[in-house]
Amino acid sequence: MSSSSALITYNDSVRALQWSEQGLCVLDQRKLPSVVEYETFDTAQGVAEAIASMRVRGAPAIGIAAAYGVVLAARQRYRENPDTWRDTIEADLAELAGSRPTAVNLFWALERMRSEIERIEGDPEPSLLQAARSIHDEDITANRAMGELGAALLAGASGVLTHCNTGSLATGGYGTALGVVRSAYRQGVTKIFATETRPWLQGARLTVWELEQDGIPATLIADSAAAYLMKTGAVQWIAAGADRIAANGDTANKIGTYALAVAARHHGVKFMIVAPTSTIDWRTKTGEGIKVEERDQNELLNAYFARSDSVIKAWNPVFDVTPAELIDCIVTERGVVRNPNRQAMKVLADAP
Amino acid sequence: MSSSSALITYNDSVRALQWSEQGLCVLDQRKLPSVVEYETFDTAQGVAEAIASMRVRGAPAIGIAAAYGVVLAARQRYRENPDTWRDTIEADLAELAGSRPTAVNLFWALERMRSEIERIEGDPEPSLLQAARSIHDEDITANRAMGELGAALLAGASGVLTHCNTGSLATGGYGTALGVVRSAYRQGVTKIFATETRPWLQGARLTVWELEQDGIPATLIADSAAAYLMKTGAVQWIAAGADRIAANGDTANKIGTYALAVAARHHGVKFMIVAPTSTIDWRTKTGEGIKVEERDQNELLNAYFARSDSVIKAWNPVFDVTPAELIDCIVTERGVVRNPNRQAMKVLADAP
Repeated sequence: MSSSSALITYNDSVRALQWSEQGLCVLDQRKLPSVVEYETFDTAQGVAEAIASMRVRGAPAIGIAAAYGVVLAARQRYRENPDTWRDTIEADLAELAGSRPTAVNLFWALERMRSEIERIEGDPEPSLLQAARSIHDEDITANRAMGELGAALLAGASGVLTHCNTGSLATGGYGTALGVVRSAYRQGVTKIFATETRPWLQGARLTVWELEQDGIPATLIADSAAAYLMKTGAVQWIAAGADRIAANGDTANKIGTYALAVAARHHGVKFMIVAPTSTIDWRTKTGEGIKVEERDQNELLNAYFARSDSVIKAWNPVFDVTPAELIDCIVTERGVVRNPNRQAMKVLADAP
Repeated sequence: MSSSSALITYNDSVRALQWSEQGLCVLDQRKLPSVVEYETFDTAQGVAEAIASMRVRGAPAIGIAAAYGVVLAARQRYRENPDTWRDTIEADLAELAGSRPTAVNLFWALERMRSEIERIEGDPEPSLLQAARSIHDEDITANRAMGELGAALLAGASGVLTHCNTGSLATGGYGTALGVVRSAYRQGVTKIFATETRPWLQGARLTVWELEQDGIPATLIADSAAAYLMKTGAVQWIAAGADRIAANGDTANKIGTYALAVAARHHGVKFMIVAPTSTIDWRTKTGEGIKVEERDQNELLNAYFARSDSVIKAWNPVFDVTPAELIDCIVTERGVVRNPNRQAMKVLADAP
């Protein structure tokens, strides 16, 4: 089976990151859905800027982009001086690491590339490119595995709701929670709902766009309509991604995820988190240890109120923390944890 | 006490509707908060258009505007022919009634004006103007009464969250749920939160604007952040308005109200509906009898998807129905019903 027919089979045609001899070709997610624009970055600095400027977003996608950035850095540094490239590349690694300081996957990918650097003799580009490609391919493979595991849980459901964008755009391809939606669609779960996901509208701009590219029908709803949708009986599952999972299964994810989990429990709708095991932060015992970042209030405020003397402010947390007891399943590439808690989660740490 | 000092005392300076000899002066709510623009309408047709075009919104405000529209109609018809004005004005009443076909308060106000028309001898304008002013004044009086009743319930709370716009802009003045917020603020409930209220952003555009006009500090949040806000303990009450209340207390209100009620119950946060008794539809026994209107999907969809061949759709219900069992109190101008149900609601029907 060729790579392209495999993509078609998987209803997964979008790739936000593509390597070519010229460099890393990046789909500018800030301009979707109205403008589909790719730009090729041929330096590590360019890749770092693509991450910092949010052309690339989604934790797994950021890690993959950074890995390709290391390839570009090695190419340049080795050309400059084959004897010193292992020293001079450190500045590039630091710049890539600084592009999104809170992204766990970014550091993980850079560490993996660094361990490869230590083994290399001669021209570093071929083996570093192979390492970056492996990170990319393994991500897609893990996503497809999660897709199958998650879709098996959804067997018999008629509808599923997802939040934010966790698809091909946010990963190497296929997606985490949206990968489950793709797999479930293939198995007959035909009613797919997506939240707008204020304030950035990742659902309204990105999720429904990439589903449309693959011919998967979907229905957009306002975030505030989700509970009422559940009351109608249209969905039996919620599938969401994760920014960080604590050792007990408490999960930080895009703001609004917690509200969906609360409403799901009220309605007897099942709630699923889908994320690779690299998202689990074993050193953080519970969700209380996760600091919730707040973003600029002007993402919410009308420009009229963006004056220092205004009595109107906004509270703009980037994500929220859903306690494990509201999560029915955590789906990873290593398997599914039902009714997650500290004990149940351990199987993932011990898995190969 | 002069009228203007009373307004200052009540933290209530905004009036969306103001009568003058020239006609009805209307604040164009579509342009807020960036543009504050008043326009005077001197015919019933103009007032009907101001309602239909959403310059005027909010059920009580629509009823009041229509009442003033009847005054303008009578002025014109009586000038045209003092003998036939009672017949010719019927066309104007019909046009006003058709401006927002689902607004209960609109029909109620027009019926009240019609009963006045039947009693009039000679020039109808003075007595119809008096009737319209009474409707307007009674609404403000009722809102202030609800404000006091609701604020008494909030005694001891530190924070309150409100949804949509139920303030001076939506009523004759002061507001229903936002009137309670105003009264509670005066009594020391200083943490006021408002939802954006997608898709029309009544909270982000209107509620925080009118609070700012009165110097009341408030914090805007994304609709999807409300549950997480409750988890932080920042609010002990939710105050929302109503579009229609069934005889058992089930309440139809702006989409997202139900999600707030579900989250409030989960967190032990109290949930209050504030509405005049004219909002109660005694002929509708439960919320299941309330048809939920759906609005144009293009209010949610990016223009890119607004093509007939797109597989992406949107579900855009205007309001949702919150069952009485999730409502702790219904606050009306006739008193408060705690733990509403069919039996408990009857006290409002029997009240003077």
